[in-house]
Amino acid sequence: VKKRTKLVKKIRYIPQETARRLSLYLRSLRRLGHQGVDVASSEEITRFLNISPAQFRKDLSYFGGFGKRGVGYGVKVLRKEIEKILGTDVIWKIALVGVGKLGSALLGYPGFVEFNLQIVTAFDNDLGKIGKTWEGIKIEDISRVKDIIKKNEIKIAILSVPAEAAQKLSKELVNCGVKAILNFAPINLVLPKNIFVSNVDMASELESLVYKLKRS
Amino acid sequence: VKKRTKLVKKIRYIPQETARRLSLYLRSLRRLGHQGVDVASSEEITRFLNISPAQFRKDLSYFGGFGKRGVGYGVKVLRKEIEKILGTDVIWKIALVGVGKLGSALLGYPGFVEFNLQIVTAFDNDLGKIGKTWEGIKIEDISRVKDIIKKNEIKIAILSVPAEAAQKLSKELVNCGVKAILNFAPINLVLPKNIFVSNVDMASELESLVYKLKRS
Repeated sequence: VKKRTKLVKKIRYIPQETARRLSLYLRSLRRLGHQGVDVASSEEITRFLNISPAQFRKDLSYFGGFGKRGVGYGVKVLRKEIEKILGTDVIWKIALVGVGKLGSALLGYPGFVEFNLQIVTAFDNDLGKIGKTWEGIKIEDISRVKDIIKKNEIKIAILSVPAEAAQKLSKELVNCGVKAILNFAPINLVLPKNIFVSNVDMASELESLVYKLKRS
Repeated sequence: VKKRTKLVKKIRYIPQETARRLSLYLRSLRRLGHQGVDVASSEEITRFLNISPAQFRKDLSYFGGFGKRGVGYGVKVLRKEIEKILGTDVIWKIALVGVGKLGSALLGYPGFVEFNLQIVTAFDNDLGKIGKTWEGIKIEDISRVKDIIKKNEIKIAILSVPAEAAQKLSKELVNCGVKAILNFAPINLVLPKNIFVSNVDMASELESLVYKLKRS
């Protein structure tokens, strides 16, 4: 068993569930930092997360131990280490495509900034929106998407457009050099295999809750 | 093989992926209905979804055949059948808890109404918001949550509050009779096993894209 553990440590890939927990720890450490806490115990860090301190220590052990037994974890140091592991120690520029109701909310969503994820440009095809500024971001004409994304070397896009427009726009984004898309449109995007897509379908999540409720 | 297929048909449980596709078909059928289309082929129904017509026909076969070969599917009839399967043939009342930036956007999100998911009441603890109306919904004082949810027999809640408040509020909701929660707060809620929880963590989704990008 011991040998196996060592093997795991060497593998660079973090299981998705672990990565998700790391991002929860990160938010907790940020919150503690804002509160002026310098050193925190595993109990304090996991307090609002409903993750056990034991799980937390186990997750960190993958990356070599941090913190000292009985002393606790340096909030700032651990935050920076986890950021390095997750790749959010540098600022990532994001393009938002589609500034409808959901898109506008995403422009002001504070959750992204916490991860150094910065929406730096936004696009729409609505003449009533183009040229206006929302949450500090000027809304650009969708026809300028190629110029702006290439010039700014943006690799990540958030797609919040109607289903009918999503496939075509996603292809265009990929042609401009975008490598990862967070897709809110209720369709399965078909893109080259080296492009990472993550789907967020809130209505479908809610609808599947209804389905479970109805069955129970 | 044939016997096996028959067995599957009898099982009531739909795999999550099938349920997700059904909800995509539903949206497609709605769109076609709005466009005045009465009868549609499997190609037309799956057009913007990037799901193959063969997959579509296979999914429907679970529930007994709809549509006629060479004729197509009655848009309205099929929509109603899928709604029945998914449980969204009746209106589901939803309570929104937390009317921050994200919560406000969810109040106006058109995607929910498509599934007969209706936000009928919203709660916040911000005195500046309580009593105001947003997207036709009056924002109530969070202290009235018990009264209002019980009175309206609401079984589903959307939770869009800060992490620190989420666990306590979710317990309160469950005590009022809520059975399913769509959780946007970045924590793992700990609730009785008979409560259905679905987590939507947009920042974490984006952050995991960054992680994949960095590794690639």
